[in-house]
Amino acid sequence: QLVVITGGLGPTHDDCTKEALAKFTKRKLSFHKETAELVEKKLLERGVRISNERFLGAYQPEGMEILKNPIGTAPGLRFSHRGTEFFVFPGVPVEMEVMAEQYLIPYLEKVSRERRTIKVIRTFQLPESKINELLEPVIEEFPLLDVAFLPRHISNDIVINAPSEEKISLDRFVEEAKRALGEKIYGYDEDTMESTVGKLLRDKNLTLSVAESCTGGLVSNRITNIPGSSEYFMGGIVSYDNSVKINILKVKAETIEKYGAVSEQTAMEMAEGLRKVLGTDIGVSTTGIAGPSGGTKDKPVGTVWVGYSDREKAFAKKFIVNYNRELNKLIFSQLCLDTLRVELLREKGEGK
Amino acid sequence: QLVVITGGLGPTHDDCTKEALAKFTKRKLSFHKETAELVEKKLLERGVRISNERFLGAYQPEGMEILKNPIGTAPGLRFSHRGTEFFVFPGVPVEMEVMAEQYLIPYLEKVSRERRTIKVIRTFQLPESKINELLEPVIEEFPLLDVAFLPRHISNDIVINAPSEEKISLDRFVEEAKRALGEKIYGYDEDTMESTVGKLLRDKNLTLSVAESCTGGLVSNRITNIPGSSEYFMGGIVSYDNSVKINILKVKAETIEKYGAVSEQTAMEMAEGLRKVLGTDIGVSTTGIAGPSGGTKDKPVGTVWVGYSDREKAFAKKFIVNYNRELNKLIFSQLCLDTLRVELLREKGEGK
Repeated sequence: QLVVITGGLGPTHDDCTKEALAKFTKRKLSFHKETAELVEKKLLERGVRISNERFLGAYQPEGMEILKNPIGTAPGLRFSHRGTEFFVFPGVPVEMEVMAEQYLIPYLEKVSRERRTIKVIRTFQLPESKINELLEPVIEEFPLLDVAFLPRHISNDIVINAPSEEKISLDRFVEEAKRALGEKIYGYDEDTMESTVGKLLRDKNLTLSVAESCTGGLVSNRITNIPGSSEYFMGGIVSYDNSVKINILKVKAETIEKYGAVSEQTAMEMAEGLRKVLGTDIGVSTTGIAGPSGGTKDKPVGTVWVGYSDREKAFAKKFIVNYNRELNKLIFSQLCLDTLRVELLREKGEGK
Repeated sequence: QLVVITGGLGPTHDDCTKEALAKFTKRKLSFHKETAELVEKKLLERGVRISNERFLGAYQPEGMEILKNPIGTAPGLRFSHRGTEFFVFPGVPVEMEVMAEQYLIPYLEKVSRERRTIKVIRTFQLPESKINELLEPVIEEFPLLDVAFLPRHISNDIVINAPSEEKISLDRFVEEAKRALGEKIYGYDEDTMESTVGKLLRDKNLTLSVAESCTGGLVSNRITNIPGSSEYFMGGIVSYDNSVKINILKVKAETIEKYGAVSEQTAMEMAEGLRKVLGTDIGVSTTGIAGPSGGTKDKPVGTVWVGYSDREKAFAKKFIVNYNRELNKLIFSQLCLDTLRVELLREKGEGK
C-alpha cells in the first residue's frame, strides 16, 4: 500500500498537510531546528530575513523521516502507518518532480515485482491515423507489446510498454517501425527536436544561426535549452520590425516590398543574410503570421515560411497551421527545427 | 451528477472510449458521415490522404450529441445517462481546454447555485513566507474570504475565493494587499509579466529591443507571445557567441576581456548597444550562466546580470538563482522583464 501526497507543506496559513498528518497519525508537531535553519539560510540567500519560526514552516510531525528538498525551502516527509507507506512532497511541480525521482522512484523500483521496459518513438509531420495505418501490421506481429499513441501538436509519440522478457520483440518492433516511418522519426525516449538537431550539428561540426520573425525568439530559445549548445549555436536575430530585417539581416528592401515580409524570398534572404553576417555554416529562418490578427486572404493566419541556407544552397518551405498564437509559434518553431534536421541528415560534415 | 471523460477518442487501436461508452450505455456504434468528412478534410489540409473509415475515427455511439472540436480532428460527445450528465473530450490538453471552455463551463455556470468570485494577485520577488507575514493582518480582517498562496518560481500568486455577496470585502482586501505589497504586485488574474510590460510600453508609447545571452531568446519569445507586441517590440539579438556581442551589439572587446562576458559592464553595453543599433527607446539585456556547467568560484552557475538602457541612463543588476538550466533561463527572463517593468513604472512617456 502506498500513498503519495503533494502540496500544503509551505509556511502559510493555507498549508495544512503537516497538521493533518500529525492528527491522522496521532503524532505531535514539534519544532524542527534543522528545517528552520535550512529555510532561514535559503531565504537569506534570496535577500529575505524572517525569524518567526511559524513562517519558516519549521514544525514537523515527530518521528517521520524528513526528506531534503534540493530545490525549494519546504522539505518532504516519509513514514509508514499501519502497513501503508507514505511519501509527502511539496506541490511546486519542479520540486515534486525532483523529489519523486530522488525518493519515490527508487522505492518503487525496489518493491515492484514486474519489470517492464518502456520505449518511446517520437515522430513529427505524420498524423496519428497515418502512423496507425503504417504500423498496423507491425503492431499485429507483436501482440505481447502494449503500443499506445500519444498525439501532441509538436510530436506524435508511439509508446511501447513491454514485459522485460519481451526485450527482443521490443527491439524488433523498433527496427520495423524505423523502416515504416523513416525520417519522420526524430528521436527516441528523452530526445527532443532541439536535442536531435544539436547532436547532428555537433557530429557534423557545423555552426548555426537563426533569424526569426513570427517565432519571436522561440527557435533560439529551444536550441539554447540544450546544455553545451554554445558549441554550435552562434546567435540569433529576432527581426520583428522590417527595419531589422533590412538593416541587420541584409534582406533587400525591394524583396519585402515586392513579395512581402511573409514570403519565400524574404525567408530565404533572412536565413542567408544572417548566416553571412554571423559567418555560420547554416542559417535558418521563420517568417509568418502567428495571429490572431494580421492574416489576409492570400496569407491567412497560420501561414509560415521556413528558410534554410548553407554554403551551397538556399530554399524556403511554406506551411499552414492555425490553432492559437502561442501554439502556432510552437509548431512553427518545430517545423523550422525539423526542416533543419532533415537537411542535416543529408548534409556532409564540414569544419567550422 | 456530472462525469467528464478525456482522451481515447482518436482513430487508433488504443482509443477505446467510444466503444466503452457504447457498451456502457447499451447503444450501437455507427458510421457518422459528418465526422468522417470533417476529419478527412482536416487531414487533407495537412497533406495526408486517408479514406479508411476506421482510421478516420468516424464511428460514434448512436444518439449522442457530437461536440465539434475547433482545433483537432476528434470531436467530443455529450449525453445524459440515468440522470448523470456526461461530457467527453479529446485528451490533447489544448483541445480539451478549448472544448471545456466552449461546452463545459457554460453548463456549469448554468447549473451551479453558489456563485463565487475568484481574484488572483500576482507577485514576484517576494517569497511566500514574506507575503504571508505582510498579509497576515489583512487575512485576519476578512475571515469570510478564502485566501490561498500558490508559489511558483516566476510568480507567487495570492488567490482569493469569495462568496459573491462578499464582493466589497474582496475589493477592500485587494486594496489593502496593494498597500502592503506595493510594486511587488505585477498583475492580476490573467496578467503575465509580459502582458504587463506590454501594456506599460504601449501606454507610454515606448519601443523596446532585447539583447540576450544566457536566456537564449526566451525574453523576446515571451514578449512576442502577446498579440500586437509588434507595436512596441522592434527586435532582439541572441548573442550566444562573444563575436556577436562585439560585432552586432557593439560591446567593446576590451570590456569582455577585462570584466568577462558575464559582468555588469557587458550587460550594460549589450543593452545600450542594441538600443542604439535598432534605434529603440529602451534596451534590456541578460548575460549569465544557465548551467549546468560553465560556473566559476566568483561567478557560480545561476549568476545573471540584467542590463537596462534608455536615453537617460544605463544600469545592470545582479541576481543569483540556481535550479536547473531551463528553470534558470525562465527565472532569468522573469528578472529581466521585472526590472524593465519597475523602470517603466518610473519612466515618463515619450514618443517613438
